[in-house]
Amino acid sequence: VRIHIALIGFGHVARRFVQLLSESRDALRALDIEPVIVGIATRRHGSVFLDAGFEADTLARFVDLVAAGNAVGPASGSPTALELLQRLGRMRSDARVMIETTVLNVQSGEPAISHVRAALSVGAHVITANKGPVACAYRALADEAAERGLSFLFEGAVMDGIPIFNLVRETMPAATITGFRGVINSTTNSMLCAMERGEDYDEALRRMQDAGIAEADPTLDVDGWDAAAKVAAMANVWMDARVTPRDVVRSGITWKSAIYARAVLALGRRAKLVGMARREADGRLHLRVWLEELEASDPLAHLDDQANALEIDSTPLGRIVITQRDGGLEKTAYALLTDLVALRRRLGR
Amino acid sequence: VRIHIALIGFGHVARRFVQLLSESRDALRALDIEPVIVGIATRRHGSVFLDAGFEADTLARFVDLVAAGNAVGPASGSPTALELLQRLGRMRSDARVMIETTVLNVQSGEPAISHVRAALSVGAHVITANKGPVACAYRALADEAAERGLSFLFEGAVMDGIPIFNLVRETMPAATITGFRGVINSTTNSMLCAMERGEDYDEALRRMQDAGIAEADPTLDVDGWDAAAKVAAMANVWMDARVTPRDVVRSGITWKSAIYARAVLALGRRAKLVGMARREADGRLHLRVWLEELEASDPLAHLDDQANALEIDSTPLGRIVITQRDGGLEKTAYALLTDLVALRRRLGR
Repeated sequence: VRIHIALIGFGHVARRFVQLLSESRDALRALDIEPVIVGIATRRHGSVFLDAGFEADTLARFVDLVAAGNAVGPASGSPTALELLQRLGRMRSDARVMIETTVLNVQSGEPAISHVRAALSVGAHVITANKGPVACAYRALADEAAERGLSFLFEGAVMDGIPIFNLVRETMPAATITGFRGVINSTTNSMLCAMERGEDYDEALRRMQDAGIAEADPTLDVDGWDAAAKVAAMANVWMDARVTPRDVVRSGITWKSAIYARAVLALGRRAKLVGMARREADGRLHLRVWLEELEASDPLAHLDDQANALEIDSTPLGRIVITQRDGGLEKTAYALLTDLVALRRRLGR
Repeated sequence: VRIHIALIGFGHVARRFVQLLSESRDALRALDIEPVIVGIATRRHGSVFLDAGFEADTLARFVDLVAAGNAVGPASGSPTALELLQRLGRMRSDARVMIETTVLNVQSGEPAISHVRAALSVGAHVITANKGPVACAYRALADEAAERGLSFLFEGAVMDGIPIFNLVRETMPAATITGFRGVINSTTNSMLCAMERGEDYDEALRRMQDAGIAEADPTLDVDGWDAAAKVAAMANVWMDARVTPRDVVRSGITWKSAIYARAVLALGRRAKLVGMARREADGRLHLRVWLEELEASDPLAHLDDQANALEIDSTPLGRIVITQRDGGLEKTAYALLTDLVALRRRLGR
């Protein structure tokens, strides 16, 4: 079937996704998926829309243009993201999809949440790599999508391309998740590893920023907001938590963490920023992001630099751990692709 | 839909599966699955068949009878497994399924392979917890099932209930698996851990046998045959290897492994029996089961006792590791349930 796609946000992940679609054309055809990109909205480089869909070489040119800092459409008069979604909504199609990868305000979840609402209201399925919508408004958005018979998918929101949401949904039927814990923020884990090796906090942070791993404003990472948003997202989806990142007990890392990390390492253990959720005996949920001292036998203790891992505790499977040894943009782009395949499967024949 | 089930083999796993079906009745109903067990064939305790399906309390009685060493049917005159499958094949049904959990000869894959062939020939889908069919005859059986429009599922064959085959099939579309490595045999891993703690080989083995983890004849485990069968199974399914366990370069553990494990541990590393597959640069497959010395930073190095883990290397996901911290029969029974759900999804509306 033909799936018409509007890309809202055209940063590194979305551009890599466009390339991945092209590279995966044969595999997608075998799954009966013919993706047609009809619209692209960027934040600072204009936007474009074409009912017939863009050709592969045109898309490749857009990728190159934006990568080089140029615009894809006229700077003034370009349709806004919302106008573009309305045009998508007016198209006749087997399936209309918004693929959303805009920059996130993790406290408010905006503008991603508005984009998700707008897409659903015009009858488009939603695939987002943003954790905002699922961390801040999962129940409302999932209900809205279900009422309209649309899919709301977000595999790229946590642990890049590692298909954790798909894993639980598709391969753990009739299981009950009772808790999870994980090292889920790459910046703070890389910094902790660097500080163990002797760097101080400012040095480690500057190196992460130079490498493009940490943002210019690293607050979201080092204060634990990014990890808290991921904890809220998973708790909302798996444990019906109905929380936002503000409901997660949260602490981050500071210059003092360097001393702590080295002291812990000297004892044969590791200091890790662990995000966790646990259903207490009285039924209440305990949600937390905290710098913890882990035993050497803990599967989360041996994650170096950008590696991530998540332990999921369930009945009847017990504790399973998913570890991502190689992260990166490429993997988040792949998450968007897996969501596209999941969407196709739901459409039926 | 109603799914008619014949259980071939009624050991611990199959009996736990019967209980799990009953416990999961609500979740299964939500997935539109109404399982009806019509036949049970045991090795030494007779067999029974009833077109209308057995009631829950009758099934519970069968479980208790066999657990206590008694028969479910007359010792002489009971239908054989093959006769029972023929009766299943003559039933009118939305879906007929054989669930196969007989004891395995890992070199020949029998009698499981004959059971799979018999089930397919009467038009029944196949769910097996046996690694024999997939390790020794995957290509032929998968082709035969596909020709007849039937499913051939085997989630319980490797890593108990951890849904590794479902994981790759359902959540890693358009990915290419380039290799894998894992600690996939619980008996040898438990013995290596015990030997690190100072037990000798015979002591460790006897303790495993007393605990019911190792078989009375432990050759399959300690000589690496069990791990080799799992390597062959995964290589057949994911890498089109078309091999049998005999094609896996194989070594096991011996009394000398105790000395080796302790020496390696003293250097801060771990000795583990690792099963692996790797596509070489010239396109050939290298398949091996070998006692290896692992660095402390290796995610396979920290598996204690019965924990299992598998690292899967793929394009574009890179290396991901799935770790099972809590194994056991309960989990293998759950694997049969996940296969039943996967089968239901394939049947469509």
